[in-house]
Amino acid sequence: MRGLVIRAGKPSSTVSYDDGLPAVHASAPECRVRVTTAGICATDLALARGYMSFEGVPGHEFVGVAVDGPLAGKRVVGEINAACGRCDRCALGMGRHCASRTVLGILGRSGAFAEELALPLENLHVVPDDVPDDQAVFTEPLAAAFEIAEQLELAEFPRALVLGDGRLGLLCAHVLALHGVEVTVHGRHPERAELLPAGATHGGAIPEPDAAGGGAAARSPLVVEATGDPAVLTRALALTAPRGTVVLKTTSERATPLDLAPLVVDEITLLGSRCGAFAPALAALSDGRVDLAPWIHARFPLADGPQAFARAARPGTLKVLLDIAPS
Amino acid sequence: MRGLVIRAGKPSSTVSYDDGLPAVHASAPECRVRVTTAGICATDLALARGYMSFEGVPGHEFVGVAVDGPLAGKRVVGEINAACGRCDRCALGMGRHCASRTVLGILGRSGAFAEELALPLENLHVVPDDVPDDQAVFTEPLAAAFEIAEQLELAEFPRALVLGDGRLGLLCAHVLALHGVEVTVHGRHPERAELLPAGATHGGAIPEPDAAGGGAAARSPLVVEATGDPAVLTRALALTAPRGTVVLKTTSERATPLDLAPLVVDEITLLGSRCGAFAPALAALSDGRVDLAPWIHARFPLADGPQAFARAARPGTLKVLLDIAPS
Repeated sequence: MRGLVIRAGKPSSTVSYDDGLPAVHASAPECRVRVTTAGICATDLALARGYMSFEGVPGHEFVGVAVDGPLAGKRVVGEINAACGRCDRCALGMGRHCASRTVLGILGRSGAFAEELALPLENLHVVPDDVPDDQAVFTEPLAAAFEIAEQLELAEFPRALVLGDGRLGLLCAHVLALHGVEVTVHGRHPERAELLPAGATHGGAIPEPDAAGGGAAARSPLVVEATGDPAVLTRALALTAPRGTVVLKTTSERATPLDLAPLVVDEITLLGSRCGAFAPALAALSDGRVDLAPWIHARFPLADGPQAFARAARPGTLKVLLDIAPS
Repeated sequence: MRGLVIRAGKPSSTVSYDDGLPAVHASAPECRVRVTTAGICATDLALARGYMSFEGVPGHEFVGVAVDGPLAGKRVVGEINAACGRCDRCALGMGRHCASRTVLGILGRSGAFAEELALPLENLHVVPDDVPDDQAVFTEPLAAAFEIAEQLELAEFPRALVLGDGRLGLLCAHVLALHGVEVTVHGRHPERAELLPAGATHGGAIPEPDAAGGGAAARSPLVVEATGDPAVLTRALALTAPRGTVVLKTTSERATPLDLAPLVVDEITLLGSRCGAFAPALAALSDGRVDLAPWIHARFPLADGPQAFARAARPGTLKVLLDIAPS
């Protein structure tokens, strides 16, 4: 089987193309999926740098066609956390937090940057006919943004700041705006204002704490940290109103010195937020509330995966796709 | 007027006794209070080390007798945040977060380690007759522990871990147990098990993450961080169940390297918690649900304040009181 593979090495890990990978086997309740298109995410770039000591086939954003099982022949996307289904957390409906879970292309499970992958049947969602592959491939990151709406009662927040105007920040801005929140996005790419939905504006660079500390009005009841830079959390806290909420969407590869005294003094809630359910994301793509086609900056055939990773790592790049098979 | 005063110095600040401090003046709505007894808190020790560059009379845990205003002659305790009463936050009932607030003995307001202090009338609470001074002096720190019950619906948490068995940790254990939460306290003082209320046990030293990572059952839905050591937050996160809550009760004087990836991956809520309302604390002291007299390890006259600070800083000390005037 053809695919990309990350191998641990010194001084650093590398991602390479391999046309001799072992074939994917799956037996019920697991299903094989022939991958059509996959998207490269910041997590993939981090894995290729050695994050989580990952080795194997990366990739977790994909659209494909089910090969076997009851969905055979259907276009599908797949939730990436494969739960054990037997533990206390699974019984509570918290399969995404199952301690024994594997995660597609991230933890203990071969990923989507290959001709085929395997996932439990329950992870697969049929893609509505009106969602083309180039939109469906965004289901996973869009679902991660929708997770905020699962965790918070967004109707309680009239306005929000999103720190970071990369993919995840923009997706979060979409989800907040869809829920009626007035959103200001801050980041290095004011030109991305044109990618924002109605109800969201670009506010330029992330304000310095001093500039925001002036008055209570300048601080927001809700701040989403989506820069990927843990040091920004200090600024996020300074931009948050007392008793407000900071949603932390991104993880870092390193520990960072943080002073959490403002969190205590201002009684701020810091909420970790990760993967989300696919259904609301697919619905938003299907009814056209979210249109992500303009985000595709480049696409490469699978065999050019290493170049695709390099392109995805270039500053200013939104989404790079891998074309793996015809739909 | 006699009192203790912190003066900035190099290499370090010092606390000293002074019998020539300027008299306290107050006009309505501020009231003068003659301080009877005051308690030394970890924050006072930090201020004396230079925290917040504080200069002046420290002290914010006290019981006294109102000198003027409608409460003249009554025994009173006082909430420590003096709000402006005019800003948006005050209008929302968030006076404890007023951006223009002063804080008794901490920020812009002379404190309780002196013969007299001044506070707005609305900050003062009459002490019930059945609460002796040596219990009433704990109202402020007990109220800070009760703040957790204001912020969280404690009925949703069957059990909790409290990290830290110092004053604040023990007070939090009391409040959690009063709300029916099964509490395990961890810290360096297993002998303090005898100070714990029914429903709370001492679990010995704070578990190492590895020891706790074994199974989902070992992780708690609620963890209160009350050690004062910001590095413990890493362990707190590892001890918290996915989608659980960590309450951060203590601030630090320094930034500390933290890896917040587990907060994101496990979607944990980190909740800053500071001062609380006095009414529930006074009620618990009045009906005997909380008895803190055994916590008083030493008491000193005001003139021996520097020795009292040194005693309070000794490891293993619970509460040191300053006797300032006869009740």
